[in-house]
Amino acid sequence: MYTAPVSEMQFLLNEVLLNNNDVTEIVPTLLEAANRLARDKLAPLNKSGDEQGVSITHDGVVSTPDGFKEAYQEFVNGGWGSLQFDPKYGGQGLPFVLAASIQEMWHAANMSWGICPLLTQGTVEAVSYGATERLKNIYLPKLVSGVWTGTMNLTEPGAGSDVGAIKTKAWQEGGHYLIKGQKIFITWGDHDMAENIAHLVLARLPNAPDGVKGISLFLVPKMLTDSKGELGQKNDCRAISLEKKIGLHGSPTCVMSYGDNSGAIGYLVGEENKGLECMFAMMNNARLTVGLQGVSVADRACQQAVSYCNERIQGVAIGFSEPGPIIRHADVKRMLTLMQVLTDGARSLAYYACAEVDQSKAIITPTKAGLHKRRVGLLTPLVKCWCTEIAQEVVNLGIQCHGGAGYIEETGVGQLFRDARILPIYEGTNGIQAMDFIFRKVVSDEACALNELIQEMNLTCTSGTTFLTKMQIESYGQAVKVLEDTASLILNNKSNKKLLGGIAFDFLMMTSVIATAWRLIESAAAASKSEINGTYLKEFVHTRLSNAGAFIDTVLPRHLAHHSIIQHLLNGSLD
Amino acid sequence: MYTAPVSEMQFLLNEVLLNNNDVTEIVPTLLEAANRLARDKLAPLNKSGDEQGVSITHDGVVSTPDGFKEAYQEFVNGGWGSLQFDPKYGGQGLPFVLAASIQEMWHAANMSWGICPLLTQGTVEAVSYGATERLKNIYLPKLVSGVWTGTMNLTEPGAGSDVGAIKTKAWQEGGHYLIKGQKIFITWGDHDMAENIAHLVLARLPNAPDGVKGISLFLVPKMLTDSKGELGQKNDCRAISLEKKIGLHGSPTCVMSYGDNSGAIGYLVGEENKGLECMFAMMNNARLTVGLQGVSVADRACQQAVSYCNERIQGVAIGFSEPGPIIRHADVKRMLTLMQVLTDGARSLAYYACAEVDQSKAIITPTKAGLHKRRVGLLTPLVKCWCTEIAQEVVNLGIQCHGGAGYIEETGVGQLFRDARILPIYEGTNGIQAMDFIFRKVVSDEACALNELIQEMNLTCTSGTTFLTKMQIESYGQAVKVLEDTASLILNNKSNKKLLGGIAFDFLMMTSVIATAWRLIESAAAASKSEINGTYLKEFVHTRLSNAGAFIDTVLPRHLAHHSIIQHLLNGSLD
Repeated sequence: MYTAPVSEMQFLLNEVLLNNNDVTEIVPTLLEAANRLARDKLAPLNKSGDEQGVSITHDGVVSTPDGFKEAYQEFVNGGWGSLQFDPKYGGQGLPFVLAASIQEMWHAANMSWGICPLLTQGTVEAVSYGATERLKNIYLPKLVSGVWTGTMNLTEPGAGSDVGAIKTKAWQEGGHYLIKGQKIFITWGDHDMAENIAHLVLARLPNAPDGVKGISLFLVPKMLTDSKGELGQKNDCRAISLEKKIGLHGSPTCVMSYGDNSGAIGYLVGEENKGLECMFAMMNNARLTVGLQGVSVADRACQQAVSYCNERIQGVAIGFSEPGPIIRHADVKRMLTLMQVLTDGARSLAYYACAEVDQSKAIITPTKAGLHKRRVGLLTPLVKCWCTEIAQEVVNLGIQCHGGAGYIEETGVGQLFRDARILPIYEGTNGIQAMDFIFRKVVSDEACALNELIQEMNLTCTSGTTFLTKMQIESYGQAVKVLEDTASLILNNKSNKKLLGGIAFDFLMMTSVIATAWRLIESAAAASKSEINGTYLKEFVHTRLSNAGAFIDTVLPRHLAHHSIIQHLLNGSLD
Repeated sequence: MYTAPVSEMQFLLNEVLLNNNDVTEIVPTLLEAANRLARDKLAPLNKSGDEQGVSITHDGVVSTPDGFKEAYQEFVNGGWGSLQFDPKYGGQGLPFVLAASIQEMWHAANMSWGICPLLTQGTVEAVSYGATERLKNIYLPKLVSGVWTGTMNLTEPGAGSDVGAIKTKAWQEGGHYLIKGQKIFITWGDHDMAENIAHLVLARLPNAPDGVKGISLFLVPKMLTDSKGELGQKNDCRAISLEKKIGLHGSPTCVMSYGDNSGAIGYLVGEENKGLECMFAMMNNARLTVGLQGVSVADRACQQAVSYCNERIQGVAIGFSEPGPIIRHADVKRMLTLMQVLTDGARSLAYYACAEVDQSKAIITPTKAGLHKRRVGLLTPLVKCWCTEIAQEVVNLGIQCHGGAGYIEETGVGQLFRDARILPIYEGTNGIQAMDFIFRKVVSDEACALNELIQEMNLTCTSGTTFLTKMQIESYGQAVKVLEDTASLILNNKSNKKLLGGIAFDFLMMTSVIATAWRLIESAAAASKSEINGTYLKEFVHTRLSNAGAFIDTVLPRHLAHHSIIQHLLNGSLD
């Protein structure tokens, strides 16, 4: 079972990231209420959803696992979909980072289910960014509340990571557009949890330029509506089949067909041929949320492993004379600690990036807003890649902690392992994130944003801390120096794009592990202050303090391997 | 589909490891014949076996997937089970390393199927080691030929890694023993591929000492036999259920019940209360074979990824002007190269350890035999742990290379991912391997075997090579030095067992990555000699040469992270 790490969330929000006192006051109540829905309603449906899976009828009607629909209704009734959105359309205007922490709960409790509101969130963002007022007025209230859901339709059989290759056609007719084409891997493309679905579909208009510069974005509703949002007849689009996936069996991944008859009616979002701009408006936050999904599944794996290792009696550990719980064994303890610091570290990084999104939108000077925007851009590939990579590692360790029982589906860790495997792939593979990072976020930027970050990292723990050893402080300082040196080495080699492409992944992982160490030190620093106020349990505060050191001891050393690989590959090119 | 890397196998056997000219002559023919069975018969059953799975009737009769039985009959008819065994019992007396290379094929083609002969091999070894002549004469000919199969019965619900906790009872009655108890996780515990199954069962005799010193080993046949091996009536044992596992759906994992009625008839193997000695006689080689399974599944993942990345057209790579196969993209190439060097490196290490098994048994001086025995003991946890860990990484990368398609079961890489996950768990979890390594193989041995190995590593490439750059040679030399220093650091801390338990896994991984670099350099050295003889294709030889350098560039740097972790943890203990 799952219960949200409410203290940890509250701590990060209230003691580390949020400055708004109005909000911090409601954080504990809000987190606890969300925890009740996640723990009591969503988590119990996770395994049954995996076992039952989704199904489709011949005419494209998709059924979700038992209980999903009712849980979704509770979600809508509770207003959980509208937290961070504009009050103008029924949103609650709360910080994104607060919504993000609550989303962590949904995905940890039931990732298959959680992806549905995740996509709706993206749809709200794209529509808010690019749609006409008329369209916004019809769709946003329904999407913000979650009464309707949304999807993203990019991929086609010949167009995956290369979005520019899409072939779906659109043409103007009457007061709208008609769409014709097939899309694949459409998450929650059809289902029975909501009365309507707003599909965001990338397509090409007649005579559009080739490649990414000729792609437009359309909102294609499953059910047509009148101007007041009253549902009319079914649009010319449907799910034609479901993929059989490694995991996420409770989430329908559809092949969608648009315009089997005369063409599916769609409405332009953004300008003609500038659809990718709108899509990226939603995709950036979606990438952060996918990183959060990594945190979610890692956290659930931690909880399950800790619980198992405390219960399972096996063998006499070193320093004991009787058989006891396996958590006593040194290597089991190593695995659990590693899982915990990877998860807590990933959460610190992901929440920080989400808080920067809020900062970038706050009413501040343009200079400050620019800084936060650059920071978000820089951190987005880190969060997407690092948090989803460590999720693989943590669920893997979670299985390992269970021994033979870990390989049996009944135990449940196998589902986490299967579900988590999508994370490094969707919303831009982690390889794509690495390219985005090195070329767009570092080289094109002349490492401006990265150096701003490095400067801040250098300010951390220069004056010494009480919770790190001398060796840990030195290791952190050296790591930041290595990052700084590597950044200038990369700028010096910027003409050799092929070479940079080959080291990009290691560079992204190296930057991430150092940035995560920084966030954990900042958290520990906050914990060492807030300790006095008595809001948190002593043991909880102690773990915040020890996490930073444990991460520096056992995870930060990875930057040495990444750095050495980069050096070898750059050196090899000089031979 | 799968085709065995016959050239690579032949190269390692004939140019690197085997000194016996009689055998090297038949190697190419034998490998090609095995490849035909693996590629044409076993590999096509892999996916269908996964989809169909195994089933059990109410009275405990297990059915295997369509085609498994017929393929097994071909395996028996071809004499493939008997390669390395004693001619006295129908074996072919061939080197273990040759048999191992052929086993790699079975597991790559169809791991679910391949585990059945793997367990039979272990049964032959335990019976050969400890059974009476009478028992050997009845069972060995049938087990060596594979007409009967074998199982290992260690685990009980309360006794997994802690074998000493088993509760299954045995008592003497008539000319045999009776056994009563339940065993879990019994691989191929029942099936329809052979007419009889020899179960090796660990149990306790009345008044046996507690723990591991009171465990005896019994051979419990499924079908009782007369002294000539003619089958009689069914013994009092049966499979009562099958586990639903993450993968290996074609391999029945049984809960076995012994003695539901009056007791299952069994025959003592080895001495009373010394059953673990016999079990370990088989387990050591089984650990090497599980390492080989890691190589197998990694190799298959490589083949599939290379093939997909050569076919899948997506995006314009750096340095090109047209869309092309994704293998052109720098990060895809990085992943494929990493997969390849991890796999080739693991194979070099595993085959080397298997060849050392042959050396330890060859007629040589006791001093030399002792050296090879120590070497096998030292390398066994490396092979089991490293080769199964890299298997996780390689299958993971294999999925990643496929993008979204990798998450769809139809593609087939998902099965490799699910199947491979058992490898770090069974035959002693990798955590157990780490304890075995640091405490039994290094500390108790005063690092004698490890220092012998380090000495040999130091002799490699001291005189420079043509296939490594100066930086690569230096990196290798420094890594060996780090290993040497860490070994003495560990001996200096040998009284702090808890601490050593906490660094054991990193120490094992560090030793493995350095040892693998050594084996790849040795392979490259052999390739630089054999290049002239024209037996191998130029491109093949070139890859052998470049692998060593690529491994040093992109994998060996990991030892820096492991070393730094060890330093941090040892240092922390001094605070």
